Amino acid sequence: MTVTSATQTKTKWVYSFGDGKAEGGRAMRDLLGGKGANLAEMASLGLPVPPGFTISTDVCTYFYQNDRTYPADLEGAVEAALAQVEQTVGARFGDPAKPLLVSVRSGARVSMPGMMDTVLNLGLNDETAAGLAQQSGDERFAWDSYRRFIQMYADVVMGVDHYLFEEAIEIHKEGKNADLDTDLDADDWKQLVEAFKKIVADNHDRPFPQDPKDQLWGAIGAVFGSWQIDRARTYRRLHNIPEEWGTAVNVQAMVFGNMGETSATGVAFTRNPSTGEREVYGEFLVNAQGEDVVAGIRTPQPLSREAAEAAGPGSDKPSMEEVMPGVYGQLLDVFEKLETHYRDMQDIEFTVQEGKLWMLQTRAGKRTAKAALRIAVNMAHEGLITETEAVTRVEPSQLDQLLHPTLDPAAPRDVLTKGLPASPGAASGQVVFTADEAEEKAKQGENVILVRVETSPEDIHGMAAARGILTSRGGMTSHAAVVARGMGRCCVSGAGSLHIDIKTRTITCNGRTLKAGDLVTLDGTTGEVMVGEVPTLKPELSGDFSTLMQWADRSRKLKVRANTDTPGDTQTAREFGAEGIGLCRTEHMFFEADRIIAVRQMILARDADGRRAALEKLRPMQRGDFVELFRIMAGLPVTIRLLDPPLHEFLPHEEQEFADVAEAMGVEPESLRWRAKELEEFNPMLGHRGCRLAVTYPEIYEMQTRAIIEAALEVAQESGQTVVPEIMIPLVFGDKELASIRKRVEAVAQEVIAASGHKLDYLIGTMIELPRACLQAGSIADHADFFSFGTNDLTQTTLGISRDDASRFLPAYVEQGLLAYDPFVSMDRAGVGELVKIAAERGRATKPDIKLGICGEHGGDPQSVAFCHRQGLDYVSCSAYRVPIARLAAAQAALAED
Amino acid sequence: MTVTSATQTKTKWVYSFGDGKAEGGRAMRDLLGGKGANLAEMASLGLPVPPGFTISTDVCTYFYQNDRTYPADLEGAVEAALAQVEQTVGARFGDPAKPLLVSVRSGARVSMPGMMDTVLNLGLNDETAAGLAQQSGDERFAWDSYRRFIQMYADVVMGVDHYLFEEAIEIHKEGKNADLDTDLDADDWKQLVEAFKKIVADNHDRPFPQDPKDQLWGAIGAVFGSWQIDRARTYRRLHNIPEEWGTAVNVQAMVFGNMGETSATGVAFTRNPSTGEREVYGEFLVNAQGEDVVAGIRTPQPLSREAAEAAGPGSDKPSMEEVMPGVYGQLLDVFEKLETHYRDMQDIEFTVQEGKLWMLQTRAGKRTAKAALRIAVNMAHEGLITETEAVTRVEPSQLDQLLHPTLDPAAPRDVLTKGLPASPGAASGQVVFTADEAEEKAKQGENVILVRVETSPEDIHGMAAARGILTSRGGMTSHAAVVARGMGRCCVSGAGSLHIDIKTRTITCNGRTLKAGDLVTLDGTTGEVMVGEVPTLKPELSGDFSTLMQWADRSRKLKVRANTDTPGDTQTAREFGAEGIGLCRTEHMFFEADRIIAVRQMILARDADGRRAALEKLRPMQRGDFVELFRIMAGLPVTIRLLDPPLHEFLPHEEQEFADVAEAMGVEPESLRWRAKELEEFNPMLGHRGCRLAVTYPEIYEMQTRAIIEAALEVAQESGQTVVPEIMIPLVFGDKELASIRKRVEAVAQEVIAASGHKLDYLIGTMIELPRACLQAGSIADHADFFSFGTNDLTQTTLGISRDDASRFLPAYVEQGLLAYDPFVSMDRAGVGELVKIAAERGRATKPDIKLGICGEHGGDPQSVAFCHRQGLDYVSCSAYRVPIARLAAAQAALAED
Repeated sequence: MTVTSATQTKTKWVYSFGDGKAEGGRAMRDLLGGKGANLAEMASLGLPVPPGFTISTDVCTYFYQNDRTYPADLEGAVEAALAQVEQTVGARFGDPAKPLLVSVRSGARVSMPGMMDTVLNLGLNDETAAGLAQQSGDERFAWDSYRRFIQMYADVVMGVDHYLFEEAIEIHKEGKNADLDTDLDADDWKQLVEAFKKIVADNHDRPFPQDPKDQLWGAIGAVFGSWQIDRARTYRRLHNIPEEWGTAVNVQAMVFGNMGETSATGVAFTRNPSTGEREVYGEFLVNAQGEDVVAGIRTPQPLSREAAEAAGPGSDKPSMEEVMPGVYGQLLDVFEKLETHYRDMQDIEFTVQEGKLWMLQTRAGKRTAKAALRIAVNMAHEGLITETEAVTRVEPSQLDQLLHPTLDPAAPRDVLTKGLPASPGAASGQVVFTADEAEEKAKQGENVILVRVETSPEDIHGMAAARGILTSRGGMTSHAAVVARGMGRCCVSGAGSLHIDIKTRTITCNGRTLKAGDLVTLDGTTGEVMVGEVPTLKPELSGDFSTLMQWADRSRKLKVRANTDTPGDTQTAREFGAEGIGLCRTEHMFFEADRIIAVRQMILARDADGRRAALEKLRPMQRGDFVELFRIMAGLPVTIRLLDPPLHEFLPHEEQEFADVAEAMGVEPESLRWRAKELEEFNPMLGHRGCRLAVTYPEIYEMQTRAIIEAALEVAQESGQTVVPEIMIPLVFGDKELASIRKRVEAVAQEVIAASGHKLDYLIGTMIELPRACLQAGSIADHADFFSFGTNDLTQTTLGISRDDASRFLPAYVEQGLLAYDPFVSMDRAGVGELVKIAAERGRATKPDIKLGICGEHGGDPQSVAFCHRQGLDYVSCSAYRVPIARLAAAQAALAED
Repeated sequence: MTVTSATQTKTKWVYSFGDGKAEGGRAMRDLLGGKGANLAEMASLGLPVPPGFTISTDVCTYFYQNDRTYPADLEGAVEAALAQVEQTVGARFGDPAKPLLVSVRSGARVSMPGMMDTVLNLGLNDETAAGLAQQSGDERFAWDSYRRFIQMYADVVMGVDHYLFEEAIEIHKEGKNADLDTDLDADDWKQLVEAFKKIVADNHDRPFPQDPKDQLWGAIGAVFGSWQIDRARTYRRLHNIPEEWGTAVNVQAMVFGNMGETSATGVAFTRNPSTGEREVYGEFLVNAQGEDVVAGIRTPQPLSREAAEAAGPGSDKPSMEEVMPGVYGQLLDVFEKLETHYRDMQDIEFTVQEGKLWMLQTRAGKRTAKAALRIAVNMAHEGLITETEAVTRVEPSQLDQLLHPTLDPAAPRDVLTKGLPASPGAASGQVVFTADEAEEKAKQGENVILVRVETSPEDIHGMAAARGILTSRGGMTSHAAVVARGMGRCCVSGAGSLHIDIKTRTITCNGRTLKAGDLVTLDGTTGEVMVGEVPTLKPELSGDFSTLMQWADRSRKLKVRANTDTPGDTQTAREFGAEGIGLCRTEHMFFEADRIIAVRQMILARDADGRRAALEKLRPMQRGDFVELFRIMAGLPVTIRLLDPPLHEFLPHEEQEFADVAEAMGVEPESLRWRAKELEEFNPMLGHRGCRLAVTYPEIYEMQTRAIIEAALEVAQESGQTVVPEIMIPLVFGDKELASIRKRVEAVAQEVIAASGHKLDYLIGTMIELPRACLQAGSIADHADFFSFGTNDLTQTTLGISRDDASRFLPAYVEQGLLAYDPFVSMDRAGVGELVKIAAERGRATKPDIKLGICGEHGGDPQSVAFCHRQGLDYVSCSAYRVPIARLAAAQAALAED
């Protein structure tokens, strides 16, 4: 140990706990780490915690700021704390007669793989091992413990390869013709201790330390040192854990669950983490140490008699309730105490040493979505937590699991490959390769999976007909992914190892070939693609779900709308609690079979008059669409985006299609192909689309405005409800552009309203989806009643990433830690977020009451929803199936502020 | 006239001038308009200016802020000013015995078409016309003047169609069997006056006003009213003239150039506006009014004897020097006085009334680029202006005319169509349709014009070989345009009416067909495409040019570099004064015939080792390229951008090409096509390119870095000069990304330097070309020695406009005034500019001495250069042929600040 001159002599570096009291507590998680804070808390609660102390994270910070040295006064503090442990236990560190043994464990604020985990039995050496043998009356236990210690210490502290030790055991067993470790006796372990010490001496520049103090400082140094090893750094980078946090070191007196039949070790949850039911849940092993439970060599026994009975008559494993009724009773008391105190389900570790219960760990337990809901709602009903607390207890993104079918976890899976989990849920069906085939087979009652290299707007009818969609290209926000999520269809996208051959109608992948009609199963939650049919479980939107959502709705300030454009989705959205439509994409309506011809005629028209004639055919159909949406939304706000995609998206791509369309339209295929060629774009995302269409072809928006206003008037008349359509102009980058288009839209709206003889209010607003629009939001707001942030396109332009092409490099960025997360999944706060903030500020500076919302895919991402709440937006809008997630996330964001 | 209660009683609304004095002057242009300010100035100078007064632009502002009413005290001020004119002239407004006649003219700060121009002879009515006849002794003159006045007044003030009056004259002439106006006598005009008054009465709700005061206020109101007519508003919108400026009204005593042979009217320049030579330049007409000179019915006569003689012996037009020697002498004195006073070439209008010279207008004269240079340099030599003033007298963008060949203006042109003026200059040659053909024919000494739908990097050798490039698609910053400007080749892009048929090797356009080998001529300065050969004039970089550039260089603070990547261009850039290379695009080097195979092997390789092997073949060639550039730049900074475009740009597109490449590489065409398909992108601009290539294929940048450092070491050794390469990493959007790539680049550089045993300094910096990079500039600067703003891509992402697709809608935006200018030509200050400003500020906050430059196309645009100067950037970089423009613009920006 190196000591430097102390500059912070007053800092308390070491915090003791045990014997019913503690210097720390759960509130000191930052300083003591999660484990240390909870050990201190349990000790203060009077729970049986082996005494010990925690060296704080401040020491870790000091260690790295001072060239890997410790504060001058640390050694004294550790000595003092150790002396206190010795006194409590009645044993002395290094005392051959009655040696104190300790465990040394790391403990950061959050559990972190890659860090040094545990060194057990520290304090053993040649002398104390002999003493332990004598004291415990169990020689085998003592020497086995010692050799385990050497092995563990040499590995994690001294960096000697653990394989060398395992090899030595194997050689020894061979020499003895022994098969199992249990075949070895005390002498064998004693011999192996000598062999182990030799291995250390041969493979390290220093021998295995015999002085327990040296052992202790070695272990402490190893814990601090492990904060900066590669695996830990990678983990931190990937999980955005700041380097400054550092780790604490916990030193605690050893207790032994392997001291005979009255000793045991186990893990438990205070409730069932799978279902959320309030019942004893856990398992234990008699005469074993903690690692044995995890290792899975022996089958653990259940805790409660009930669980033992549930395991069936064939089970020969008696429960703890039966074999250690006293300890079991104590454990139930501990459950009660911990739940009352922590007010959450706990995940605990315990050891029983010769009939006495010791608590080694407690922490909030991980749970399934279903359990999280049940626990939160039950605890509120039990009065343990408030209803608003219950709202904060469920991870919003977990809800996704509940809203879609899932694969039966018990069923076998023949995994073919893995793609991106683009839209949750699970589905099985026959492979089809075209949208038309999907529709046809679906009409015949077949379940189909639509398999495409990538999807385009022309595939929508097939996607709607399919149970699931599988693509070999495209990312989490590719067309397939976005549309599938919107429809609630399960989707696996970007499964790059699939080679799809449309001609032969086959898929080859990893040496296997599937053909059209073969059964496959998709897991949209994991991205797995399976051969054959895997049974699925239906979602159960239990009472707990709706109870919690009601509580959530009371707390949130953000409104939640849905991005939908079909009556079916709109109905679903309302059932999921959507408070309006935030984005109705009118172009999807253009693709239906009876309309696409008129759309193409419009595109091929030679002049504005020709376009108007074709648009007039579309108007009654669009009006009909809007009438349906207004009816379903029954007076809730409906935001309709005027045509956005470039016109070439509506033209055919294949030769045969050109011929068909040309015939249907009575034109030469050549002229059609020529126009298609003419409209082709290098970068359609940055091309002739959005309101740019209105600048060159104003008649398109005029028709759409007319259809919207007519539909609103019709529904307002028939229902007597107030219908206030919100007309949204996409892809604006400046005020003059919006002013000019608004003028035209307004003129048409006024004319239709005047002609009707009725009154109708309507709003005209714009998507803010280009960086320039964010910067110019101040002047744009002069002409907009609302802003809706289109964060999909804003992400594409701000980062310069095409979401359809991103799958080639974005995964590498996330893997290498160059981006903390996929910016198409969660809003890039550093870039896109700043622009949204600027736009909101500038927009409000011009028009303080301007309505602000977001309608990108991020509207259903909890982190992004929280960001929107903090910016004071009025609403988020997301696909129907994510509405509950957004509602919960919005509530949590509001509660986090209080 | 309507009067409202005055709130600003102290404001002076009316400014008198004449009789050797004036209340205004040239400094009051904002208040008096250009015309009014200069009339006042001339009067103060003692020049003979007919007396008058100017009603200020403040009145115009008041007029529109107060519902088209005047200040209460305006009427009195006008009366007083008018009285002063009456006194000076010795005539009275409305006095039949000796009537004062006036002209009423508009006059804004800048000349503005669309505004009401002029009403002459105001003050004439039935009585004063008779008086004028008597006083002048010329009845015909009086009645002709009166009828002209009625016609003009009725048209511009009362809105009566001027056609009605012309018709009346025609009918009258028919009745008299007269052919010409001159065939009509005093009585005819007198009769027509009656007819005209009847026309007014029949076509307006009030008769023609007989009261001169009513006439005057009518004309004043018409001038102010014309500020808001559609044409004027459109002009203001297009030229960014604020509405608040308003117009002034000039009322001035009439003088008559049509009072016989001792009267005349004329226009003159104080120097030759075409060549800049100091000589008398202008023309006049005896016995005529100003409009007659413009109308072109009579051929005007030259002013000087010299000019008359230069017109040749056939000319029968005597000069003013000959026919009015006295007035001519006065005029020369006026020239001298005006130039001495205004210190610039003047464009003047004058009238001679019965032997007396009157000045009606003076203003700075428009001039050609050549003349601008000559005048600026000469005036500085003459001591009239300083050298720094001379620098401010030449419009930088005008220089473009001087640096390229131009079409002989005298030659006839058979214009086929018009495209975008993508790269200046002019060229004639045979039509070729492929780059290979261009190269082949050029080798045979033919002049060729390369005609493509659009160009791609594969066409570069053909573009270099051609005299000019013509495309039917793509905007001002399409590939063709950018590359052509870089090479100094003339280019017309986006000529949409051309239908290019590669198969039949023909162009059809507006009903005409051209085939390969036909001669065409391009004018890259106007965008015109002509059939046949039009002779061109060679650029003459006269001594004036280099003199002025030297003076400019003394004033500027911005350095000017060039974007070049070939030895030829780099040489040109140095000759044009480039102080380094700001952007060397390494990908252009990848396309040369002997390299593209290795590039494609690299792309097709299955793993990093395969890629490395192919890259090793390229390394000596890249090193050779860099050696040449370093040699030419002889120690000046050279910024080399590592590979930027997506890899698919290097793969073939056509079937035959695939076969050829596959054969050359010894692979199956299928595998090549598969890979090409795999690499295809929806939006290549936002795709897998820039430093994203380095994240997935780090070996590419490693090879390039090695080649750069090896080349720098080689040239440093051989020349003894300090070579400091600047390695630039493109398309960065975050700090972690740059840090990671920088680390690899640095490792290679250090390794090569260490192995050489020499020392070498180098910089590693980044392009800032994405909005997120601008916002994150603070943290990015931690890892960058310099920022180079890539404003081309930054414009594309900030506005969401693909420059290759923009030609479909951007022209409509500029036409409709939705954008003030093409953001690819001049930097969009509102969006891109704010991001550049943010990035510069944040970058400097982290690293105060970070080097900042710009290397987009905007580096050669004067407005953008001025913006860069104001942001305190260190340099701009532009194509070689724009370097002089940037130098001059940078100097002017610096001088504008002083």
